[in-house]
Amino acid sequence: MSQMVRIAVDAMGGDHGPAVAVAGAELALARHPHSQFAFFGDSAAIAPLVAQRPALQSASRLVHAEISVRMEDKPSRALRYGRRKSSMWLAIEAVKNNDADVVVSAGNTGALMAMSKFELKTLAGIERPAIAALWPTLRGESVVLDVGASIGADAEHLVDLAAMGTATARILLGIARPTVGLLNIGVEEVKGLEPVREAGRILRERMQQDMEYIGFVEGDDIGAGKADVIVTEGFAGNIALKTAEGTARQIGEYLRDAMTRSLGARIGYLFARPAFRQLRERLDPRRLNGGVFLGLNGIVIKSHGGTDAEGFAAAIALGYSVVRDELLAKITAALVRPGREPLRALGGAAS
Amino acid sequence: MSQMVRIAVDAMGGDHGPAVAVAGAELALARHPHSQFAFFGDSAAIAPLVAQRPALQSASRLVHAEISVRMEDKPSRALRYGRRKSSMWLAIEAVKNNDADVVVSAGNTGALMAMSKFELKTLAGIERPAIAALWPTLRGESVVLDVGASIGADAEHLVDLAAMGTATARILLGIARPTVGLLNIGVEEVKGLEPVREAGRILRERMQQDMEYIGFVEGDDIGAGKADVIVTEGFAGNIALKTAEGTARQIGEYLRDAMTRSLGARIGYLFARPAFRQLRERLDPRRLNGGVFLGLNGIVIKSHGGTDAEGFAAAIALGYSVVRDELLAKITAALVRPGREPLRALGGAAS
Repeated sequence: MSQMVRIAVDAMGGDHGPAVAVAGAELALARHPHSQFAFFGDSAAIAPLVAQRPALQSASRLVHAEISVRMEDKPSRALRYGRRKSSMWLAIEAVKNNDADVVVSAGNTGALMAMSKFELKTLAGIERPAIAALWPTLRGESVVLDVGASIGADAEHLVDLAAMGTATARILLGIARPTVGLLNIGVEEVKGLEPVREAGRILRERMQQDMEYIGFVEGDDIGAGKADVIVTEGFAGNIALKTAEGTARQIGEYLRDAMTRSLGARIGYLFARPAFRQLRERLDPRRLNGGVFLGLNGIVIKSHGGTDAEGFAAAIALGYSVVRDELLAKITAALVRPGREPLRALGGAAS
Repeated sequence: MSQMVRIAVDAMGGDHGPAVAVAGAELALARHPHSQFAFFGDSAAIAPLVAQRPALQSASRLVHAEISVRMEDKPSRALRYGRRKSSMWLAIEAVKNNDADVVVSAGNTGALMAMSKFELKTLAGIERPAIAALWPTLRGESVVLDVGASIGADAEHLVDLAAMGTATARILLGIARPTVGLLNIGVEEVKGLEPVREAGRILRERMQQDMEYIGFVEGDDIGAGKADVIVTEGFAGNIALKTAEGTARQIGEYLRDAMTRSLGARIGYLFARPAFRQLRERLDPRRLNGGVFLGLNGIVIKSHGGTDAEGFAAAIALGYSVVRDELLAKITAALVRPGREPLRALGGAAS
């Protein structure tokens, strides 16, 4: 890593393309002046946007790409037409070639993961990458993973997720010895829970110096902040994340409805406006925008597709932090910890 | 079913035992006078509570049980000590022997399901029962299942869940032709999704007269009310439900915090108090308390363990409705629909 953080931006991703990507980079640059940007995409669309922003222009370069990956395409299809030519592919390639430290994209999640695996390859010993999300809780923030990179997990994969999540929490949350919980359901003795139980046994027996395994947690423990790292397989993790987002939106609607229904409520709203503004900020999904792809030889940040410049800037800031704090080196160190081999032997069916 | 709805209450379940069960039954009786109660449990604890409530006393009987199933015990253990003797077992047995139309318990979910399966057996053609929850949405309510009875699901089980959920929505929500969505994650082409896709194909091809299959939905579509019936396997379903509850609690805390932080906010709160009361009611988890066990030869309602009398009354009301509207007969009819045999043959690996 050079002293500057070099950020490759897939400028064609997301619902709004270059407009949001470039404006987001401008916000991010103002907050983190040690950033350098490379925008990948249609230069005719990107160049004028950059030219309007002199500070950004002097801190960025532009790499033309003919092809944009469409949001709705399947990964296999995106790979067929987007390989070697799309803005997404070229942005990832910049990380592979060490021309950039991190890639940020608001594009098609499946395609981004497929191309990232293809170009960057997984870390030694890791078969399946994961997506980690920062989750706001009553006690601060937690790292939740996997939120959708792969479905199902054997004990070994869950233990890997715990190690990667711990390294991530140490860096992003600044917690020396994060607590780790395995997401589970309350009903014991149900068939299908063996991998979760087995992972719990392994984590308990081989309690790492760098993590405190606290046992099983349930869905409502995530928002309560019961553990700094919440480990689960990607299907349940994705559904938990989306369900929480949907619930927050739903309650926001209820609140808006309640505060406009009567004159008293409207007057009350006026008095309490700063409090509502603060609440809105706390619930603002842009604040913690960005999933980190873990387990790859390179850092990839996925922004929400529908976000605005503020949200995209948050995704860039996330990328900036993980690069500055050398997440990749720390995850690699966590995975090659002593005892890894016997652990793998313990883990039962290999994935 | 007699003209009265006969409700067997496991009075020893939940965190508060008979105090909540008896007080909840009193509330329920006031709202549904065509109810008759049988309380199962420690008569020394229950009798005085009933005696204080003359109306309830004349509408109820008491069956002494020596044993109470503990909340923290595994189902296998509960079955060992609670079989034929526990309040939970005897209450279920009342339904089996047609001495009651429905059993309501706030007790140990796993034990309740294990004993229900043991005593009532599953419906013909159903291998695995499910738990259905009523989920408040922006458009009303939806039926979500399975929220934790079993883990993993092949296509056939998901199609069964859709049929059972449809019958439940028709009865509890009064919708003639409910919309049905299959819970899925956004990333396509991930291994492990085959059963969900296969179930989707079956539901689309064999579009039932009594349901409108609308395709895949994601976690945030539940709260938006995108489908009347949301179908998923029990691990993800349980985590979704608990995560939504946790998120609602979390936002409630944020709101309380925001409204007490400044003088302006406190004044605003005073003006808007009725609006906040209404919001609180909407978010009140007691309002929709109770999961329905589906796929058994008898109706079993599980109340939240930590609920109060108001919440337990809601669980009883739920049981009352499904009995009055003959849920069991309608589910059985839905499952023996024409085309069931070829569908099973299509479904791939039998569970």
